[in-house]
Amino acid sequence: MTAALDIAFAGSGIDRADHVRADPAALSALKDWRARLLRLDGLAPELSDEGGLSWGTLADADPAAELVFLGLKDGRGCFAAVAPSLIGSVAPPDPRMRTIMMTLPGEDLAIYGAARALVDWHARHRFCARCGSATVLGKGGWQRNCTSDACKAEHFPRVDPVTIMLVEHDGQLLLGRQPRFPAGFYSALAGFVEPGESIEEAVRREVFEEAGVTARDVTYVASQPWPFPSSLMLGCHAFTDDPAITIDATELEDARWFGRAEVAAAVTGASDAPFVAPPAVAIAHQLLRWWLARS
Amino acid sequence: MTAALDIAFAGSGIDRADHVRADPAALSALKDWRARLLRLDGLAPELSDEGGLSWGTLADADPAAELVFLGLKDGRGCFAAVAPSLIGSVAPPDPRMRTIMMTLPGEDLAIYGAARALVDWHARHRFCARCGSATVLGKGGWQRNCTSDACKAEHFPRVDPVTIMLVEHDGQLLLGRQPRFPAGFYSALAGFVEPGESIEEAVRREVFEEAGVTARDVTYVASQPWPFPSSLMLGCHAFTDDPAITIDATELEDARWFGRAEVAAAVTGASDAPFVAPPAVAIAHQLLRWWLARS
Repeated sequence: MTAALDIAFAGSGIDRADHVRADPAALSALKDWRARLLRLDGLAPELSDEGGLSWGTLADADPAAELVFLGLKDGRGCFAAVAPSLIGSVAPPDPRMRTIMMTLPGEDLAIYGAARALVDWHARHRFCARCGSATVLGKGGWQRNCTSDACKAEHFPRVDPVTIMLVEHDGQLLLGRQPRFPAGFYSALAGFVEPGESIEEAVRREVFEEAGVTARDVTYVASQPWPFPSSLMLGCHAFTDDPAITIDATELEDARWFGRAEVAAAVTGASDAPFVAPPAVAIAHQLLRWWLARS
Repeated sequence: MTAALDIAFAGSGIDRADHVRADPAALSALKDWRARLLRLDGLAPELSDEGGLSWGTLADADPAAELVFLGLKDGRGCFAAVAPSLIGSVAPPDPRMRTIMMTLPGEDLAIYGAARALVDWHARHRFCARCGSATVLGKGGWQRNCTSDACKAEHFPRVDPVTIMLVEHDGQLLLGRQPRFPAGFYSALAGFVEPGESIEEAVRREVFEEAGVTARDVTYVASQPWPFPSSLMLGCHAFTDDPAITIDATELEDARWFGRAEVAAAVTGASDAPFVAPPAVAIAHQLLRWWLARS
């Protein structure tokens, strides 16, 4: 099923070259004049004249920046820099990102997504959560190590699993809107997987918490890395036998059932669509397309 | 497919009562004489005479301990304490856990798993990763908050997605063993999902990294929360067209193909089985049973 979906932020085609990360000599050898540095403006990508990612050389990096090894592409090491200006900061939403996500070629978007997630993680994880000491970059940027000899804790980039689900009843889908959404915008319900639950349990809990709906027969459809800041979206489908909705007003402003024709109109952006669907880069959009195609 | 699998650490039956966590008055009201405290010995559960979890009252908690709200069971608040003795420590492997996992009733094991993951997270996350200041427990234990007014970062319990996969070729399965495994023990290959990749990409990367095998047609089978310390196991199946194995000696000691009869013998613990299979509490065991049952 997954193969048919067009999942943005996946498919970078880069070789992560895991064996290089832990090999200081190999990593050092890759940091030569051939190495490529992903050009970032804050956390946003700089774009080439052709509208793809823009690459420089390591000489372009701030000498004080930490370097993250993204992997190998065409035999050359690809890196991103954790600019000192990013450190300790929280990136505000960047209005440029919407256009960038819609126009960057797929492979470039995936390379950027991984780089952004990593760079942002380094910027926000300067200290050891266990002992409070400073940490330093390790394993080419896939780890941070505590500098306290008494602690020596190792820390790894976060990947936070998030369930996002289409709940179906009688040929209709349950979609909701948060107060922060643009006017008319509805999407699939979603929520983080918590410690101590499976994906399927998280789906049932979220649907009940947010909409008061009891979901059954949860199935997995597809997944997507989503670097704002570090989610792994787990796209699911479920059924319910009872369409009565009770929304949690702290999470949702509205939730409704939409039929096939309504979903089709929204996904294709028809002018008379009853709601605005998520854009194609969002897995919610792909789940809607998957649902329209399957039955 | 999932419904048929017996996934340990899932199915606690507890109501996580998300709305209570952010409501100090409601949370406080639950901390009455009826509240139940999960008895822990370090990070291991104390057992009742019947072999289930042992529960006390909040009066049993160290007055200096932080309390984590696990949820509601039979209308009563269930809590676990972050004992001062656990703070900043790393739990060594506990030889009692193997027996405990095999004998605790399913619901109790799931309650314990969530509690362990949370308590252990609090014990190892005392400081703000962003600014290094002390953090304090928030939202009933589902959050920690930085105490620095200049930072105020919010931190959430980690859930680390891990792919674990059966790769199939010509009716045989690829299984491997790590040097630390008991004699004769083989299991499914596994590895953490990294920033910037989907589940399906992580499966293909791990299989190639660890065994030099190119996987195709990755499908999701089932998931499992695994609290050692905070994994979400994502059980998958894939095929390959080329069975040639090249192991990564830094990860694996051996990897081999096993046929149906061999897998069946191992899963049932036959004395002449060619390998020792993972125990039933591990999703790898359930994946093997799923594979045997499906074809």
